Amino acid sequence: MKIIESIKEFGGYLNRYTHQSDVCDCEMTFSVYLPPQAESGKVPALYWLSGLTCTDDNVRVKAGAQRYASEQGIALIFPDTSPRGDDVADEDRYDIGTGAGFYVNSTQSPWKNNYQMYDYVTKELPALLERNLPLIAGMKSISGHSMGGHGALICALKNPDSYQSVSAFAPICNPIHGSWGKACLNTYLGDDTKAWQAYDATSLVEAGAKVSDILIDQGTADEFYDEKQLLPENFQAACDKANQSVTIRMQDGYDHSYHFIASFIGEHIAYHAKALKSK
Amino acid sequence: MKIIESIKEFGGYLNRYTHQSDVCDCEMTFSVYLPPQAESGKVPALYWLSGLTCTDDNVRVKAGAQRYASEQGIALIFPDTSPRGDDVADEDRYDIGTGAGFYVNSTQSPWKNNYQMYDYVTKELPALLERNLPLIAGMKSISGHSMGGHGALICALKNPDSYQSVSAFAPICNPIHGSWGKACLNTYLGDDTKAWQAYDATSLVEAGAKVSDILIDQGTADEFYDEKQLLPENFQAACDKANQSVTIRMQDGYDHSYHFIASFIGEHIAYHAKALKSK
Repeated sequence: MKIIESIKEFGGYLNRYTHQSDVCDCEMTFSVYLPPQAESGKVPALYWLSGLTCTDDNVRVKAGAQRYASEQGIALIFPDTSPRGDDVADEDRYDIGTGAGFYVNSTQSPWKNNYQMYDYVTKELPALLERNLPLIAGMKSISGHSMGGHGALICALKNPDSYQSVSAFAPICNPIHGSWGKACLNTYLGDDTKAWQAYDATSLVEAGAKVSDILIDQGTADEFYDEKQLLPENFQAACDKANQSVTIRMQDGYDHSYHFIASFIGEHIAYHAKALKSK
Repeated sequence: MKIIESIKEFGGYLNRYTHQSDVCDCEMTFSVYLPPQAESGKVPALYWLSGLTCTDDNVRVKAGAQRYASEQGIALIFPDTSPRGDDVADEDRYDIGTGAGFYVNSTQSPWKNNYQMYDYVTKELPALLERNLPLIAGMKSISGHSMGGHGALICALKNPDSYQSVSAFAPICNPIHGSWGKACLNTYLGDDTKAWQAYDATSLVEAGAKVSDILIDQGTADEFYDEKQLLPENFQAACDKANQSVTIRMQDGYDHSYHFIASFIGEHIAYHAKALKSK
């Protein structure tokens, strides 16, 4: 991995890197915030998965997360949302292709050549970072927003021993029943809806996946909540039925933007810090 | 004034407005963060003047200021950096014309028709806002970044009774001696350098202007500091000679970006809150 930018912030460093990804077969860009505590020892890490249209840059500029990570001594890992490059399949729409990897391993041509974001964020990237940065091996949690909230939920539910905690902002909780989710899952996985369920948080809970706890914030003025893209009620019902501990906080008057995330990211980072520091 | 957007954040509202400005003779856009305390009473206000190329949007998205304003019960006022519109004079460069009003009253054609940003931010906008929003009349402070740091310093130094406190991030302290400042001042004020001094913070202190105190943060890795656009040393020397209280903190390793501002905006808002709440 090659460092291409380093900006001092809150006493630590916000770095951007590129590397050649094996699983995505292209050059990938990501950012890491290393808190001041990383200068004198290893720190735990919180992975943040971003939403449709984002790169690694949106969250690092807009969420205000670095302040809390600096206080808590936690590294923040900001992967990109898809493979990119001239040789990477794409469509001329915002919700499929680059910027919309949906955190799945594609099985369909031509997408499967590069769109292996599930393996990328759960395996390749953590292994790379634990080899190269002052991170405590295996001591990681995960969160994200919208498509990235979906990503956080499925990564944790499919790998309960790999993440100390999981949270999400306005996640796509049941993508097999929303138009964003259906379009991406059909594109990347084909028309066998059984394959879709392996990447659907609500279906995973229904099938017996379990983590110790889940924290979700959802704004009541979120247009995509109204559009039934997110479906937290379906996730709540599945968790209730499966005795999966979950707290879904309906935040009155908040929308889908980073202003919503900024308002509650401090509480999420405190939630993850508690889990990461209790081990 | 007409509200065109309202986003809930940190329990308050980040609103955007347009209005017809008399002094700039065009439609102007600005944003205001009203903290939760403004729902039950009037609050003091911190004006934030942004830098070259910015609109009202950069600071509200990138600085992380709303969090502290919510805690302190202070409104944040984010004006635009210039007049705008099809009828407004402009040049095809980033450092003169729209996005680069330099917070002066232009005396030169065609700029003088609209570029009256000094009167706009010190008189017209505060009067408009105190008539229309729950703000305590006259209870205001001012801060800003780069060109906006220059703006904050001159607004306070020229109106010491109008602002309870003043601070700045990487301000252009002595624009008559930097290439940005010279280009703007020459464009908007003509070639009489005496006229420039009336909008130059260092010259104003040399000429006897006085405020109770000034807080400045300047990053040591700031490329525009290296380029001698900012010249805080000149301002420090003038303040020392005039017995003007000033604290210029050279922040090791920080650059000119909003990541630098985000790192210290909380301390600046606490500094202003102390002044605004002691009256």
